Formats: sequence, C-alpha cells, structure tokens
Amino acid sequence: MSKEIVYSVDVHFGDCDPAGIVFFPNFSRWMDAASHHFFRQCGLPAWHELTDPQQCIGPPLLEIHTRFHTSATHGERLDVHTRIEAWRGKVFIQQHRIMRGDTLICEGQETRALCVRSADGRLKAVPVPDYIRAACA
Amino acid sequence: MSKEIVYSVDVHFGDCDPAGIVFFPNFSRWMDAASHHFFRQCGLPAWHELTDPQQCIGPPLLEIHTRFHTSATHGERLDVHTRIEAWRGKVFIQQHRIMRGDTLICEGQETRALCVRSADGRLKAVPVPDYIRAACA
Amino acid sequence: MSKEIVYSVDVHFGDCDPAGIVFFPNFSRWMDAASHHFFRQCGLPAWHELTDPQQCIGPPLLEIHTRFHTSATHGERLDVHTRIEAWRGKVFIQQHRIMRGDTLICEGQETRALCVRSADGRLKAVPVPDYIRAACA
Amino acid sequence: MSKEIVYSVDVHFGDCDPAGIVFFPNFSRWMDAASHHFFRQCGLPAWHELTDPQQCIGPPLLEIHTRFHTSATHGERLDVHTRIEAWRGKVFIQQHRIMRGDTLICEGQETRALCVRSADGRLKAVPVPDYIRAACA
Repeated sequence: MSKEIVYSVDVHFGDCDPAGIVFFPNFSRWMDAASHHFFRQCGLPAWHELTDPQQCIGPPLLEIHTRFHTSATHGERLDVHTRIEAWRGKVFIQQHRIMRGDTLICEGQETRALCVRSADGRLKAVPVPDYIRAACA
Repeated sequence: MSKEIVYSVDVHFGDCDPAGIVFFPNFSRWMDAASHHFFRQCGLPAWHELTDPQQCIGPPLLEIHTRFHTSATHGERLDVHTRIEAWRGKVFIQQHRIMRGDTLICEGQETRALCVRSADGRLKAVPVPDYIRAACA
Repeated sequence: MSKEIVYSVDVHFGDCDPAGIVFFPNFSRWMDAASHHFFRQCGLPAWHELTDPQQCIGPPLLEIHTRFHTSATHGERLDVHTRIEAWRGKVFIQQHRIMRGDTLICEGQETRALCVRSADGRLKAVPVPDYIRAACA
Repeated sequence: MSKEIVYSVDVHFGDCDPAGIVFFPNFSRWMDAASHHFFRQCGLPAWHELTDPQQCIGPPLLEIHTRFHTSATHGERLDVHTRIEAWRGKVFIQQHRIMRGDTLICEGQETRALCVRSADGRLKAVPVPDYIRAACA
C-alpha cells in the first residue's frame, strides 16, 4: 500500500508524568512529527510549500484513534513506524506503530483530508493528487 | 448514566501551531485535565490518594478516539463537557466534548481500566467499586 | 510603574514530571500566557491585530531570567502576578511572580523588544508607542 | 572546566507557534533533555539511580537565564552544546548553547543544587561528590 518509514524519538524526563511514564498526548505529538517526516522522506515538500494543488494548506486531522498496549519511560528510544493505511478519495489514513525494540507500545490511526483554500477563504477537501500517492508507494 | 461536568480552558498563543490553530495533542491534554477534574467534582479523592481499592494506581488509558469538527485558536475560551459514557466491568469510557459556546470543536472517548498493583508488582485491572460509580451518577 | 494583573492557572497532572512536581518549562508557558493576558486586560488588542505601529509583529523575547523558590504540584491553583518592571526605549521588561496563596513559587523577568517588519522584510525594533505605555500604567 | 557534549533535536511543526517559530519554552525543554544527556554521556547513572550520595533526588533547578539571538523553525535540526560552566560547592551551573550549524540560536545557564532527602523528609543541598565532578571533566 505504501512505504513504511521509521522515525526515532528519545523519551525525555519531561515527557513523563508523576506515574513515571510517558504522558499520553506526547505519543500524539510524536505521531504528528512522524507524519511530517514520512512525507518528507517520500521526497515531497513540506505541506506549506506545495504549489500543486494550488493554495494547499495541508491535510487537517479529522480523527485520531490510538490504542495503548504498554507504557514507556525516560531514557528509552522509541521508533515510530509510519505508513499510509488507505487512500480514500479526499481522505487518507496514516498508521503509526510506536515500538521499543520488538515491543509495541501503542498504535494509532490518523484520518486526514487534503485541503485547499477556496476563493471565498473556506477550506475545501480535494482528491489527493496522483503524484503524492505515487511518491508514498 | 452519569453527571456531566464542565471544565473551562483558555487557549494560549503557545497552544497553537504555525497554521494559527490549536495543535491537536493539546486537546488530549485538556481532556485528561477534564477527566481528573470530573472525578474530583464528583467528590472522589485524587487517584493516587485512593486507599480503596488498595494500592490503586488509577485508571490507565487503554484507548482514545477523537473526532475533530472545526478548529480553535488563541484568545478563545473552550468548555470541556465530560461524562461517563459506559461502565463495563473493569473498564469505563469517559466522553469529552469540547465546545466554544454552541460550536462543537472536537469530541473524544477515553477508555480506561481501573488498576491496582498486585503482590508481584504487576498492574491488574479490577472492577470499578460501587462507591465510585455511585459518586459519578 | 504599571498595573499588576493576575492570571490564574490550574496545575494539571500532565504538567508534572516523574518527581511529581511541575516540569519547569511549564512555568515559562504560563508566564507567556500571563504576558498576553496582561496586555489584553490593559485594553490593548492582541499583538497581531495592532495597526499602529504599522506591521507590528509583536514583542519577540530577547531574554528570560527565572528564579525557582519552591515546587508546585497537580491539583494546585497558581496565580501569576504580572506587571511591567521597566520601559527602556525599544525594550521593556515584564515581571511575573507565580504564587500559591502567599507562597512565592518562582519569579521571572522577560525582556522583549517591540518589532515591526521593515520594507525589506527584516524585523526592526521600534520605540514602544506612548498609547501602549499609557494603557499599562 | 568540563567536557562539551552535543545533543541534537529536530524541530517539529508542533513545536512552533502562530508566528511560525519555535515557542520559547521548548528551548528550555530541550536544554533539560540535554542536561540529562550530558550526565549520561559522562558515564553517570540517571539521577534517580544514584545511590551515592544516599537518597539523591537529583539537582533541582534554582535559576535559569536564557538569551535568544535568532529564531528557529520546523524542519530544522538544532544542536544543543552542553558543558558545566562552574562548580560552586553545593551548586553548579550548566551552560547550553543551541546552534543551527554555525548560527547561535539561543544560550542559557541553568543553576542547580544537588539534593538529598534528609531524615525529616526535607530536601537538603549537598556538595557535589568528587566522582561526579571527575566524570564530567
């Protein structure tokens, strides 16, 4: 369906909560970083630099769904494994699995819609151009 | 099913990203704050102070699911409407709807399991005690 | 020298680190929120809405200096007491004292320069207009 | 005076504010990560694992002082250059310079005191043991 690309993060002391484990919104933060990294590694420009489709404003999030399997803590290095799970017209689903070695820490789907700004200033979802899908394949 | 309790947050400049809108992991951060606030407003002690069930370590997250309807930005005040959507044995689902006035910004479910630390040091999910369910009703 | 204006924040579980106390960059985050709040409470528009001086881009930070006196933890409400300590031409110093009741948790100075974007696109510091200084007095 | 050790960070989209530049408390977050990294790279255990001095609780921050020279943005890689600037009895000053290639983005000092927990439960600053100073030299 798509390439799988790995982005590594170090878990810092300050990413952890009083229970000594990663405070969960940080996993979303790392998945977002991995999402940007994925498209750059596929050879695409940053979203705000895209001139085709015109006035591309990037792929706003419609939905996230994350399942937490076990905890992680500071001093650990985690690998975020990212791929495109499905292209569905104007919407696509990106999947992230956060691993510590062979252990699955959590896995999440992000559903995004590629949007442009229409003449009236409103956001409008557009079909993901073929060249973007091809770059990720 | 349960009380609905509202927790208000101010959106700060630093909560927003280069697109000028709330960076989405902050919504998870505010839902977590609203979750803690909900139980305190129901008259329950903080999780780490619970002595019954014994050695309660609180309700770790199993899963989050958030749908984003529209964006929010700095200078706005948001209200997080929180309630228990379902008690399912050792697991419960908390629902958060983040509103700006009458506008639904995003809504999320958090699935949590109430856990204690067993003699061997491992976490073990336990049925949510009746007094906790009663306090939230 | 200036008004003193108070901005209150709730310390959340997720603002605290594995030592159980506020992770210190969050104090900077709250001081920044208090800085924005201060100018709004003085009746000034948000920086990005200022039309005089023209093309105002706000007051970028030049320097911060914070002294930590004691720790704070989740469940506490803190008050950030903010005032202008000095106007020095194109630069001004804002002081924030974070209190828990009568206890000083930390105090910080932020040195900022009011900037506009010049014709060549570069930032240029400009004298703080009298109407801004008057609004804060 | 001490080793200088470099810790690299990627600036993420979500680390930046509506002005499109790094929201400044993130620089403190990265300096804290670099501080932990420094001591580990010097061969020392994590603070919470130290058994000598007894009941070491690590080096709480007394003071930070940061000067901002220019901005940084997402997609950039920054290097945090960390060293010990001075050992002063029970207190030490760690210096961090954050560089983008040859460009100095910001520089900061963190003043910390090595603390143990005394019999009455209170924190007490103690002289930094020689073996810690030697490991950093």
